[in-house]
Amino acid sequence: MFAKPTFLINKSKVERNINRMLQKAKRSNVIFRPHFKTHQSAEIGEIFKEKGVNKITVSSVSMATYFFENGWKDITIAFPVNLREVNKIDELSGNLSLNLLVDSSFSTEQLAHSLTNKVGLFVEIDNGYHRSGLLSEQIDEIDKIIEIAANSENLNFSGFLTHAGNTYTAKGKAEILSIMDDSAIKSKSLKIKYMDRFPEMIISYGDTPSCSIADDLSVFDEIRPGNFVYYDVMQYHIGSCALDDIAVAVACPVVSVYPERNELIIYGGAVHLSKEFIAADNNFKLFGYVVELKDDGWREPISGAYVSSISQEHGIVKMPKEILKKFKPGDVVGILPIHSCLTADLLRNNATII
Amino acid sequence: MFAKPTFLINKSKVERNINRMLQKAKRSNVIFRPHFKTHQSAEIGEIFKEKGVNKITVSSVSMATYFFENGWKDITIAFPVNLREVNKIDELSGNLSLNLLVDSSFSTEQLAHSLTNKVGLFVEIDNGYHRSGLLSEQIDEIDKIIEIAANSENLNFSGFLTHAGNTYTAKGKAEILSIMDDSAIKSKSLKIKYMDRFPEMIISYGDTPSCSIADDLSVFDEIRPGNFVYYDVMQYHIGSCALDDIAVAVACPVVSVYPERNELIIYGGAVHLSKEFIAADNNFKLFGYVVELKDDGWREPISGAYVSSISQEHGIVKMPKEILKKFKPGDVVGILPIHSCLTADLLRNNATII
Repeated sequence: MFAKPTFLINKSKVERNINRMLQKAKRSNVIFRPHFKTHQSAEIGEIFKEKGVNKITVSSVSMATYFFENGWKDITIAFPVNLREVNKIDELSGNLSLNLLVDSSFSTEQLAHSLTNKVGLFVEIDNGYHRSGLLSEQIDEIDKIIEIAANSENLNFSGFLTHAGNTYTAKGKAEILSIMDDSAIKSKSLKIKYMDRFPEMIISYGDTPSCSIADDLSVFDEIRPGNFVYYDVMQYHIGSCALDDIAVAVACPVVSVYPERNELIIYGGAVHLSKEFIAADNNFKLFGYVVELKDDGWREPISGAYVSSISQEHGIVKMPKEILKKFKPGDVVGILPIHSCLTADLLRNNATII
Repeated sequence: MFAKPTFLINKSKVERNINRMLQKAKRSNVIFRPHFKTHQSAEIGEIFKEKGVNKITVSSVSMATYFFENGWKDITIAFPVNLREVNKIDELSGNLSLNLLVDSSFSTEQLAHSLTNKVGLFVEIDNGYHRSGLLSEQIDEIDKIIEIAANSENLNFSGFLTHAGNTYTAKGKAEILSIMDDSAIKSKSLKIKYMDRFPEMIISYGDTPSCSIADDLSVFDEIRPGNFVYYDVMQYHIGSCALDDIAVAVACPVVSVYPERNELIIYGGAVHLSKEFIAADNNFKLFGYVVELKDDGWREPISGAYVSSISQEHGIVKMPKEILKKFKPGDVVGILPIHSCLTADLLRNNATII
């Protein structure tokens, strides 16, 4: 067991995390369309399905194809449409209810010319994160997109979609809520402007930090958090979850122990955990928390222990001398990942639900 | 073509990079045992094979298995032995010439008890990188390991192995050469001490920066550089290679163009390129250089263009206004990766040799 770095998924924590978000969506009376890019797993998808979830979000055509092949029939690809995959998109949209995302009239026009099947079309709004999306004041371009869709048989304008990725670098809960409020204000103006003409349109909102922290999400029509299914050390640092909510750990073999350095080396590196880290300052980087693994999972992280450095296959774990004494080569430690989405992606072929 | 992020490998640059290192090894009269963790590809392996290379290095039992299955019969696993895979190791060593790495008497003893087939045994020396390995002055522990090996039927003490990973954070060529000199001094003392008893023992030395920069490597007996086969932006910044030596680029579809921000968004994120970056300071991070792709590859990077930010699937590319004008959604750009080993690992299933 655990001969190689293995992604452990604690099912009861996953269920608790899903239940909590599902209940919040119900209380807020919003559509729950969880983002499946975090787990990318048909098996984890089944847990959602059992709880009545039937709408999902993904971030690539490949993921949409995978989940369609695993029985999902209502999928939003929350990524600016990739015109180089338009044939694959068209094929998919003949078989399921598919929503696409655009942020330019150029891409919308290309879609209008190429698609032979109906799709829902969301306009992405940049709420201040400045990754993809139009600013809410770029009304001319928004109107152009809506007109192209209105003149197309296959593009059904469905509303506006925003991902508040800037909550990930927020300094605490108040800033996260303030980013969400800002998105809400922008979304409301767009809704007032277009609601009369498109009474069915919705405002779709994403990101785990705000959906976890806010009590009430009813200002939106749909939420698309993804990371909450597993959470991770980054979310714990942001304030989105408790340590006990982190539902995944990577079991890593210990290969060397250095008592004089208060360090041990694990088989577990950048190709398993990813190079994501949290930096307190230039001299202190955190690549993961450390837990002892028990038969039924893990408890609190070991106080004072952390992954301090990472290369392709090696991880260096710093640990207080007294605890370090307990470990020898051949043992296994658990690492709580900094960013579970990336770790899950890297260890997709070596995961176990416990 | 290039509907998704695709790893492009320029074969003629790969051959040139291999030839250069191979010639240097020959001139220096050292064994050339390239590290295959960078490419992890049987196809790239064949290029080495055609040039007469028959000894390789890998960093996991899985990689050793993969290359054994692809016809390689002389493999060093340059990673502290993972005792949890001892059965697999034993099975492998029955079929090929396998060298293992240890840095503790504890692991050596476990091996002595478990193995039923012969292996070569290297003691890893920490030359100052402080990842794995014993310090060259930890003579008691080194002697213990050698005694355990001497009393074992299956452990053949083969010499000392060091990886000067600290060259990766060196500030220029002089510091890299000084790190190499330091390793050489430590290695020579160990050789003097043990050569009489083990006349066949060798000193094996690694890392692309020093093997690329030093003209003469004859102070060692074997070299194990890996990254040089592709090189990357990090190696260019360190001074190990010219820009033109970088043999790989990731073809990424352009999905959005923002003239007002001098930015475009590519389908190409952390799950394709990795989160590795170079930071000039806290406000400037570099996740890749940008090239225009031609039918036969690419030329110099676009001046003033770079990947400035990266999330799971998105990359943000900054580009001077005049060049940005040339691009629209549906086009493709090439990204020269920061760390080709990680990018190659992520895109193993979507690579093309050009």
